[in-house]
Amino acid sequence: MTTFNTADSALVMQVMHARRDVRGNRFLDTPIPAHCLEKILDAALCAPSVGFSQPWKFVIVRDQRTKAAIKASFDTANAEASALFAERQQDYRALKLEGITRAPLNIAVFYTPSDRPVLGQTSMPETGRDSVACAIQNMWLMARSLNIGLGWVSILDPLEVKRLLKAPADSELVGYLCLGYVDYFYSQPELEKRQWAERKKRSQIIFDESF
Amino acid sequence: MTTFNTADSALVMQVMHARRDVRGNRFLDTPIPAHCLEKILDAALCAPSVGFSQPWKFVIVRDQRTKAAIKASFDTANAEASALFAERQQDYRALKLEGITRAPLNIAVFYTPSDRPVLGQTSMPETGRDSVACAIQNMWLMARSLNIGLGWVSILDPLEVKRLLKAPADSELVGYLCLGYVDYFYSQPELEKRQWAERKKRSQIIFDESF
Repeated sequence: MTTFNTADSALVMQVMHARRDVRGNRFLDTPIPAHCLEKILDAALCAPSVGFSQPWKFVIVRDQRTKAAIKASFDTANAEASALFAERQQDYRALKLEGITRAPLNIAVFYTPSDRPVLGQTSMPETGRDSVACAIQNMWLMARSLNIGLGWVSILDPLEVKRLLKAPADSELVGYLCLGYVDYFYSQPELEKRQWAERKKRSQIIFDESF
Repeated sequence: MTTFNTADSALVMQVMHARRDVRGNRFLDTPIPAHCLEKILDAALCAPSVGFSQPWKFVIVRDQRTKAAIKASFDTANAEASALFAERQQDYRALKLEGITRAPLNIAVFYTPSDRPVLGQTSMPETGRDSVACAIQNMWLMARSLNIGLGWVSILDPLEVKRLLKAPADSELVGYLCLGYVDYFYSQPELEKRQWAERKKRSQIIFDESF
């Protein structure tokens, strides 16, 4: 049984703190070596999944035509989204929110529900998709420990992405990930740095015994 | 900007591979020191969140009466669940699926949606809850790197857990976590070891360019 020491847990914490959501303004063209992609996928596959259901599917996208089509879906969704941030529309438009065509590698991550009851999922069906989110977080941390940036694009029409990638009807897009080396990683979340949103206080989110 | 080396990424991978879902049969009574709990919560708070919305709330439960009430919710939900695994009911019943009262520390993790539009969440509303799942995965990995076991209990009536913990109406239970030191960590997922479910082949879940 593996026992970790203080330096090990400090290193894990450092990777977590250094992980950033990366957009197109930071990505470099440098290709991601195959052995790095393998490690990122390995990290996904050792994520927890409810009832060991492994309900995840990954589509690796490098084709520029596919990326361009996904980017078009982003543009449409983003134009609609920007209208929702009425008073802050200028701020919103100033943000770079994707790196689809800039990143050398994209990975679309899907949740595919089981057609049979899954142990642990019967009272809380959302735990199937939660498992896929955990896999993405593993990928994100593994990428960062390899000095590779990852950005999760969510301003997309999930049905259009499914259509473009010929995804089965019962699958659900969880995340569309853009991966690549970067010129640098910000030292704090970009939306915090640009004062789009404030960091919450611990007293607002951590409670003892009950709310 | 922090640059990690090969040994660093190998260590992160090792922690990911050594992480297990821990149930009551493995937990020890040894209390979790305050500084370790702090690190586990720190790990949660540096998780990614859509639009930097930090839509998570954590309730730390140590009170044995609360744990007993949550355990009662598990017992009811588990009796209902076991009926769904008709042909495998004996196997199902042989599995220990929670460590609520055995674990010295429980943490209930909730998602609380924002009352205003959140950047990045407008086309894919599920990304709010996904952020909370990412926070749980960070907690899980941090706990493992501190040699602390964590088990995610999902066989619960989420509304009953909300009631017991006086959670606000708009909050949603994502995970009920049991934490404690363990006698040992299994070398592979318990459900794989016990042949409840098989590990999927990479060719079933990883695709190039499209499905």
